[in-house]
Amino acid sequence: MISATETAKDPPAKQPRTERGRRTRQKLIDAAAVEFGEKGFHEASIIGITGRAGTALGSFYTYFDSKDEIFRSLVKELGDMVKTRAAAALEPEQSALEAERAALHEFLEFSREHKEIYRIIDESEFVDPQGYRHHYERTARRIMERLAHGVAAGDLRSDVGEVEAWAIMGMNVFLGLRFSIWAEDADPIGIADTANALLKAGISAHS
Amino acid sequence: MISATETAKDPPAKQPRTERGRRTRQKLIDAAAVEFGEKGFHEASIIGITGRAGTALGSFYTYFDSKDEIFRSLVKELGDMVKTRAAAALEPEQSALEAERAALHEFLEFSREHKEIYRIIDESEFVDPQGYRHHYERTARRIMERLAHGVAAGDLRSDVGEVEAWAIMGMNVFLGLRFSIWAEDADPIGIADTANALLKAGISAHS
Repeated sequence: MISATETAKDPPAKQPRTERGRRTRQKLIDAAAVEFGEKGFHEASIIGITGRAGTALGSFYTYFDSKDEIFRSLVKELGDMVKTRAAAALEPEQSALEAERAALHEFLEFSREHKEIYRIIDESEFVDPQGYRHHYERTARRIMERLAHGVAAGDLRSDVGEVEAWAIMGMNVFLGLRFSIWAEDADPIGIADTANALLKAGISAHS
Repeated sequence: MISATETAKDPPAKQPRTERGRRTRQKLIDAAAVEFGEKGFHEASIIGITGRAGTALGSFYTYFDSKDEIFRSLVKELGDMVKTRAAAALEPEQSALEAERAALHEFLEFSREHKEIYRIIDESEFVDPQGYRHHYERTARRIMERLAHGVAAGDLRSDVGEVEAWAIMGMNVFLGLRFSIWAEDADPIGIADTANALLKAGISAHS
């Protein structure tokens, strides 16, 4: 995969220089989310993306070199969206556990609104393996930072760290898969509360 | 995907009738795990599978109709292997929490021995969507049964159920991804202990 390494570190090469350019690039990214989400990477086409975006084919090549490149940019963008939404759900005075509940609740709502996100991130394992790994490593790092903050504040046990961060991420991803993507048969608030009770005090009858 | 519905419910059509046939079919499945794990579904070939298995092409068609069919059988088989290994790690007198620790530890060891399992299960989302969903639904159901047993025994809080089962499955899958597939930089026993402490009493400093 060419420039797969760059994906993880560098911004895409062709950044728009005007506000209008920024909007056009964003329209293409949004259209790509629908096209890749519906058709999958292999069936998706640049024509399909520009058709959905209502832009000329030339506009595509102003911002992206290839279908591969817009896919990689989209994976990065979806990660940014999850990050931004989670951050917006947090409040400064929250305890570490309240922050985890808010982040999960927001993620469940976000995945209901953007059901294509699972298919796209999951397909990146095959289309852009470095982008896939980077997506989860940066998400885990973000959770680890929240946990470290909670440890420093005295909210969390002092030995809480990387294993718990990956455990929480896995919990959140699979709760989203079950209760946002496959079926919306339970209230996101209730699910976030239940998962939070697990984080707070475990599942033991004796704790 | 033809007969995708069957995958979830029915046994494959061409079951071997002799012990020798059973061994040949198993050799093909084992070879398919290596072929699909290394090359991915689209690049993998039936010739590649029979070559690795050391069987004639005719043998393949005795047991499988197509590359799709052996892939679906393999996904089912990998699920069975995970199930069998987890079951073997359990002991009758264990508490529900000890059972979860043993199951996670065994899964971490299993994924280190069978690193191809993640790629194959993950690719089934695209090649055999029903098989993919079935894989996680049956795993969650198995965890739910263990938890229900723990509730009945008085080990676990009486309200523990489906949400916790999916949370535990997600934890286990992502801990395996991080500590068995991407890097083996921590001891599976230590990881299982840490995840188990989370399940036992949560991460709060105050619980």
